[in-house]
Amino acid sequence: MPPFAVMSVLQRVADLRAAGREVISLCAGEPSQGAPADVRRRAAELMHGGVPLGYSETFGIRPLRELLARHYHAWYGLDIDPGQVALTTGSSGAFLLSFLAAFDPGDRVALARPGYPAYRNILASLGCEVVELDCGPERRFQPTIEALRSAGPLAGLVVASPANPTGTMLSAAQLSEISAWCAHHGVRLISDEIYHGISYTGSRGECAWSHDRSAVVISSFSKYWGMTGWRLGWALVPDDLLTAFDALAGNYALCPPVPAQHAAIAAFTPSSYRAADEAVAEFAAARQVLLDRMDDLGWVDIAPADGAFYLYAGLGDRLVGHPDSVSWCADLLETTGVALTPGSDFDPVAGGRSVRVSLAAGAEAVAAAVDRIVAFQAAEHPTV
Amino acid sequence: MPPFAVMSVLQRVADLRAAGREVISLCAGEPSQGAPADVRRRAAELMHGGVPLGYSETFGIRPLRELLARHYHAWYGLDIDPGQVALTTGSSGAFLLSFLAAFDPGDRVALARPGYPAYRNILASLGCEVVELDCGPERRFQPTIEALRSAGPLAGLVVASPANPTGTMLSAAQLSEISAWCAHHGVRLISDEIYHGISYTGSRGECAWSHDRSAVVISSFSKYWGMTGWRLGWALVPDDLLTAFDALAGNYALCPPVPAQHAAIAAFTPSSYRAADEAVAEFAAARQVLLDRMDDLGWVDIAPADGAFYLYAGLGDRLVGHPDSVSWCADLLETTGVALTPGSDFDPVAGGRSVRVSLAAGAEAVAAAVDRIVAFQAAEHPTV
Repeated sequence: MPPFAVMSVLQRVADLRAAGREVISLCAGEPSQGAPADVRRRAAELMHGGVPLGYSETFGIRPLRELLARHYHAWYGLDIDPGQVALTTGSSGAFLLSFLAAFDPGDRVALARPGYPAYRNILASLGCEVVELDCGPERRFQPTIEALRSAGPLAGLVVASPANPTGTMLSAAQLSEISAWCAHHGVRLISDEIYHGISYTGSRGECAWSHDRSAVVISSFSKYWGMTGWRLGWALVPDDLLTAFDALAGNYALCPPVPAQHAAIAAFTPSSYRAADEAVAEFAAARQVLLDRMDDLGWVDIAPADGAFYLYAGLGDRLVGHPDSVSWCADLLETTGVALTPGSDFDPVAGGRSVRVSLAAGAEAVAAAVDRIVAFQAAEHPTV
Repeated sequence: MPPFAVMSVLQRVADLRAAGREVISLCAGEPSQGAPADVRRRAAELMHGGVPLGYSETFGIRPLRELLARHYHAWYGLDIDPGQVALTTGSSGAFLLSFLAAFDPGDRVALARPGYPAYRNILASLGCEVVELDCGPERRFQPTIEALRSAGPLAGLVVASPANPTGTMLSAAQLSEISAWCAHHGVRLISDEIYHGISYTGSRGECAWSHDRSAVVISSFSKYWGMTGWRLGWALVPDDLLTAFDALAGNYALCPPVPAQHAAIAAFTPSSYRAADEAVAEFAAARQVLLDRMDDLGWVDIAPADGAFYLYAGLGDRLVGHPDSVSWCADLLETTGVALTPGSDFDPVAGGRSVRVSLAAGAEAVAAAVDRIVAFQAAEHPTV
């Protein structure tokens, strides 16, 4: 399993900060606002007793599963049986259980390149054959039917919308088309919807269950609600996978973290939704700062970044003098104290020329970082 | 993956209780006292801000890893590098990562029968060949060198001491012998030590790292500290597995639950150790109640139950009239409102004649349950 380039960047950030250096980190794949106040308050109340914090049911406590079903009604107009909502240990837990339930060793499973590397790595370590769909900027970094057709026989497809690292989203029409294609060809669709709610297009994101309930839908409290460290996610589990998913969850995890489950009940208060939407507004401001400076930065092949809190871009001729973006990012960090994530973590083929910028630190941090990057690039290439 | 018989017992317990029936459940594999007061207090304080609850380092926060290293010094006299302590999502997370790091598909991995079924099920689902070592009462339900010798070529061995479901423990001499045999034969030892601290022999349990640091040691805050639902465990990772373990943990889990990590710092206060030891004293009292009534119960092949909070026993001729202990347990529950776990979950071969009694509900509950069981058996078999 390959190590992530971002890990050495993060380690260097920690070392520099420990040495007293001021660093602007635009690496993190997590929002900075933390859990909504209502969630923290409820978690604190839990600790004063009354609520048992032993093992929960394998799929999590019923009241939270019911609230999630209501959330799907409110956001997507879907009627969902809480029995098909399985709470998991982060979306990571949901991906593992879904892959185990849906696929066998040797199965070919497709996903977009660039994409979140853990999907590729987990699938490969479970003995699946990972089929990377080359999704460049001309395809808005998302799989197309054409790409699926030329991929050969598949058992599964993982889509992510909004995607990490690009932030691009599938429209309702695109997801509908992909979903129908999968259903027609017996390909299990796994829909990563963990960034839903964080978007700049007016849509919360399109749910795969609006099109076909044989898909596995995966989401999380980590991103929109800012609860990364709490490790609580969920899956909408198709009927035919429920038994396997339950047996696997019982053996692999017993149950998701229980204090987090009880606290997450307060994620559905009006105040918590408001806090989450305020964080999204801050990401939007940071995104606008970055887009407004694109000419100054001179980057290329910029993903539209319809959602999530990332911008993915090619460094183009700003890379000259460095073998790849890993080296460029290391140099940028030492020289300016700005930390970005090299694209190679997301795209082993072409990512060496790209970087991912996280907007999660907010508009002010992004503006200051861009000033430093522009100065760094000018000093490196005075003629550009 | 086979479903657990205990799940239908637990479901029936919930149904009976919902219908107003009073049930004594001696099923649960979890202590009832919950987290120590200091841990709950610290968790509540966390929620008032100041401590970031985003992702932690993959192996968990450094102060907790350092406290665990000190704990190993205090309990076992071991000097451990905190860099080799990997916090995980419960011991479940540690087992998964250890199996992935240490074994390849097709590897033969041995474990005791009876034993905790999730090990068998996870190994099998990862493509390992599970070699069950028949460990009957005459072997105190623990693997012997003789059993290992006749098992054929092995890549790994999982031992558990105190064991679930039997509570039997390996002595220092036995673990030393097994450890040396594994080292000599290139067999990776995985030592499940999650019940350490809960024992009735004067020993906290024997740590595999006292004998050989190529073993993986797995433990947890769930049992001794009563923190099951918090999902926080750890592994002591051998040098040669550190890189793989780290890469796997980053991909599969990102990090263990962060509020639990910060709260668990308070598990090492004198007051928390005292609370845990008081719970152990209560289990000891429940165990004595049960052992004192063994003649009345007429059960056979009783495991010594040196540790953990279980007693595992054969039903002997009390089973007459029932095809197996699943049926017997179902009948007992309907007739008397006492819930036990059928042995078939732990031993697919001989477990149909055994039951596991959990002592976690305390002495009073166990005494009341035994009265009902004795009456049930007398009514079923008036001549016995």
